[in-house]
Amino acid sequence: MSEPRLVGVLGGMGPAATVDFYGKLVEETAATCDQGHVPIVIWGDPRVPDRSLSLLGGGEDPTPHLRRGIEALKRAGCEVLAVPCNTAHAFVPRLADEAGLELVSIIEVTADALAADGVGAAGVLATTGTLRAGLYADALRRRGVEIVEPDAPGQRQVMAAIGAVKSGGAGPAHRRALAEVSRSLADRGAERIVTACTEIVLALDVSRVPVPVLDPARLLARRVADVALG
Amino acid sequence: MSEPRLVGVLGGMGPAATVDFYGKLVEETAATCDQGHVPIVIWGDPRVPDRSLSLLGGGEDPTPHLRRGIEALKRAGCEVLAVPCNTAHAFVPRLADEAGLELVSIIEVTADALAADGVGAAGVLATTGTLRAGLYADALRRRGVEIVEPDAPGQRQVMAAIGAVKSGGAGPAHRRALAEVSRSLADRGAERIVTACTEIVLALDVSRVPVPVLDPARLLARRVADVALG
Repeated sequence: MSEPRLVGVLGGMGPAATVDFYGKLVEETAATCDQGHVPIVIWGDPRVPDRSLSLLGGGEDPTPHLRRGIEALKRAGCEVLAVPCNTAHAFVPRLADEAGLELVSIIEVTADALAADGVGAAGVLATTGTLRAGLYADALRRRGVEIVEPDAPGQRQVMAAIGAVKSGGAGPAHRRALAEVSRSLADRGAERIVTACTEIVLALDVSRVPVPVLDPARLLARRVADVALG
Repeated sequence: MSEPRLVGVLGGMGPAATVDFYGKLVEETAATCDQGHVPIVIWGDPRVPDRSLSLLGGGEDPTPHLRRGIEALKRAGCEVLAVPCNTAHAFVPRLADEAGLELVSIIEVTADALAADGVGAAGVLATTGTLRAGLYADALRRRGVEIVEPDAPGQRQVMAAIGAVKSGGAGPAHRRALAEVSRSLADRGAERIVTACTEIVLALDVSRVPVPVLDPARLLARRVADVALG
């Protein structure tokens, strides 16, 4: 077996989602001892300005913070970059290129999985920033998959649940609302629900959704393990 | 509030234990948004040679690997060092000194908690390396707390459970054995059981132990949050 490649994780957006991603990376690695796992460096800077606010025109640009993290990961010897925050993908592909790091994109990995499953339409639960930036819309359109987004009241419920996870945990009301929004996307033709914000993964009860749920964080973990360990 | 201090985590020993520690750090931080959390860099190198084997005289010295990680964390700008691996504490205090990093020692934090609770005798579930190196014995003796260690067959059960966690998860037999060893320590006078290996935390059913269980990983997380956020 060849030497594993050092993976840089630009995390902390939010911290609980990064913990979740790291756990999935360990689970998705077929290792029988410590030494068989993926070597990683996590830059966990929770002080990165809110990505959604910036995309919606009201907030500080997170680019300098993200660039600082990516440069630190590069200096630490990382070759591969993974970012367990969907919204940050409005910024990171260009910064990864600048730094000469190979980005494993959570968006592209997820779009690949939907296309491989022959899905015609996918419901996307994401931040308003992710949706406005067209991150999933573009990646899905290129593969001939239709995107189904929540209506305005549904999207407000999604953002409320994300905020709850970031402030310590989503309660039963948030969980119920997310399940209802998911059902309405399925009613409008979505064959899959994509939990396209790493916080939503932590708050959606999959058992309450009538169609299969796709977790981009887990798909990213699986691809990263493959890329790192060859 | 003053600027938070950047915390370096020397992790990957093993990876699942580092995930567990990172999760506890997020839980133990009273934050209402991403930006209130502890900024951290995790060096997650699972290729560090086995710490126990080295301490028992049979394995490669992990010191160069540990030093490399600590130096990378220092270069990334970290001021504080946390290592969620008890056994590695046979090596890291000297290396942290060399690098000029402030080590928050999982051993010292735990010994502080036992002394603060007025505990007279504590049962310690740890790797054979940790016990042979006297890490807990020394720290507890300095505080007037007696250490109760498993007998030889019990210690073999402990090591088997640790190995199971590192290779993917402990089964019911390992969990039962750990609970039995804990009960025998309590029978011999231990007023607390210390899960002094970050893998054991993941395999011990606290409800089956007749005395309170102290989790050094959580105590470390709490202290790190305090030290970083002031």
